[in-house]
Amino acid sequence: MTFCLNQKVLFKHCDPAGIVFYPRYFEIMNDCVEAFFDHIGHPFEQIHEKGAVPTSKIETSFLRPSRHGDQLSLDLNITKIGNSSLSLSILTKCVSEERVHFMATLVNIDKDGNPLIWPNDLRMAFTPYLKSEA
Amino acid sequence: MTFCLNQKVLFKHCDPAGIVFYPRYFEIMNDCVEAFFDHIGHPFEQIHEKGAVPTSKIETSFLRPSRHGDQLSLDLNITKIGNSSLSLSILTKCVSEERVHFMATLVNIDKDGNPLIWPNDLRMAFTPYLKSEA
Amino acid sequence: MTFCLNQKVLFKHCDPAGIVFYPRYFEIMNDCVEAFFDHIGHPFEQIHEKGAVPTSKIETSFLRPSRHGDQLSLDLNITKIGNSSLSLSILTKCVSEERVHFMATLVNIDKDGNPLIWPNDLRMAFTPYLKSEA
Amino acid sequence: MTFCLNQKVLFKHCDPAGIVFYPRYFEIMNDCVEAFFDHIGHPFEQIHEKGAVPTSKIETSFLRPSRHGDQLSLDLNITKIGNSSLSLSILTKCVSEERVHFMATLVNIDKDGNPLIWPNDLRMAFTPYLKSEA
Repeated sequence: MTFCLNQKVLFKHCDPAGIVFYPRYFEIMNDCVEAFFDHIGHPFEQIHEKGAVPTSKIETSFLRPSRHGDQLSLDLNITKIGNSSLSLSILTKCVSEERVHFMATLVNIDKDGNPLIWPNDLRMAFTPYLKSEA
Repeated sequence: MTFCLNQKVLFKHCDPAGIVFYPRYFEIMNDCVEAFFDHIGHPFEQIHEKGAVPTSKIETSFLRPSRHGDQLSLDLNITKIGNSSLSLSILTKCVSEERVHFMATLVNIDKDGNPLIWPNDLRMAFTPYLKSEA
Repeated sequence: MTFCLNQKVLFKHCDPAGIVFYPRYFEIMNDCVEAFFDHIGHPFEQIHEKGAVPTSKIETSFLRPSRHGDQLSLDLNITKIGNSSLSLSILTKCVSEERVHFMATLVNIDKDGNPLIWPNDLRMAFTPYLKSEA
Repeated sequence: MTFCLNQKVLFKHCDPAGIVFYPRYFEIMNDCVEAFFDHIGHPFEQIHEKGAVPTSKIETSFLRPSRHGDQLSLDLNITKIGNSSLSLSILTKCVSEERVHFMATLVNIDKDGNPLIWPNDLRMAFTPYLKSEA
């Protein structure tokens, strides 16, 4: 299963060259991950009461530029569910054209920054989105 | 040679977990690249009159969290000078503790988005910062 | 008539004090104005092909803090349609609690920065949202 | 006395119209206030251990646009020291041309959001920057 988020490229995302300023892409990526946790019933605002899910690693390929007004769709899949980590692939497209590909790893931690094993309900909520990188 | 930029972690960089929000790190990274081009005599505001230097690829490892008030230093080295691309390594530390490692590739393009061979003066300005990744 | 935009307070909006960082409110306000122009059939990406609509003045009262997860609603009304300016009131609430009140003035300009009289179709599209500040 | 901060307009500050995107101005304003508290020996990272200094009100006039590469200077003065509030004027110029004028009010609060009377040392540190709005 794939979680999908739509995001129009807004004025605030764009730089003087008229294309998305890449740090803004990471905000969009973060919004997508936050919307995904919302969707599976574990909103960030609840998770952050007890701990956090910081990002430990991101690989990003910017394949083609995006412009103000472009209608982007972000397809999120899980590529690996670790003990306390989660690896994600987010492919951002405009219609069928690939724009950006993110590969990120999150870690579940407690208030003191120690890794925390994913609770069973979260692990079960992740599972349908797991996709082998064939 | 290494180009170094100092950046205190400011209030605006931090999230509710009290640590740097990772999209802010990419703004800091971009500031570092912009300061580097400034330093070697080719400021971004001049480059963007004729074209742009978008980022095509970034690999990032977030090694340890940074907190409000931390004094960060960013060490920038060039790892490869291509025909129209430039690969950079930026290591962000707080005192001697490594916090974030960026590996990025920029591409020199013209107003129409076509790759542009680095002019000779820019290539010569880059060279002292080239470091073999031994 | 009132134009309404809903915006959940996301992780990216919040600061280490756990509340919305005020510069983020201005991004949200800008998103609301952009969504309004979209809604009335004159999207920003079209307007910016010929000119721009910079903001010349903003008065903001931050009445109560907003927290991660709060469901905000923004109510936009027009308070004055000038020759080449537009005054707006945007009241941001969470349920019935008032959070932020913006009073902003935009100016329609051409590519050279000169004021541009609002075209008739835009003026007509604004009119239903005009509200006397009784 | 006036507290002064210099800030070059960077790529990240600018929008597709090539000028500073106004929410970015509020980040710059916040950086200026944070640098001021640093300068008078009460850094934000210490203040936020015990409470916070949220902004309750801002009036902003955008007088002229700023462009990528402009060297801005921000002149901060205090216009009123209240029991638990502080009113500031920040005038942003490029050379002698006025660009933006902020009038802001901050409030000192404790961890529960209740107003906190300014401690004497902070009040004394503010005083030299007090300027009557003649």
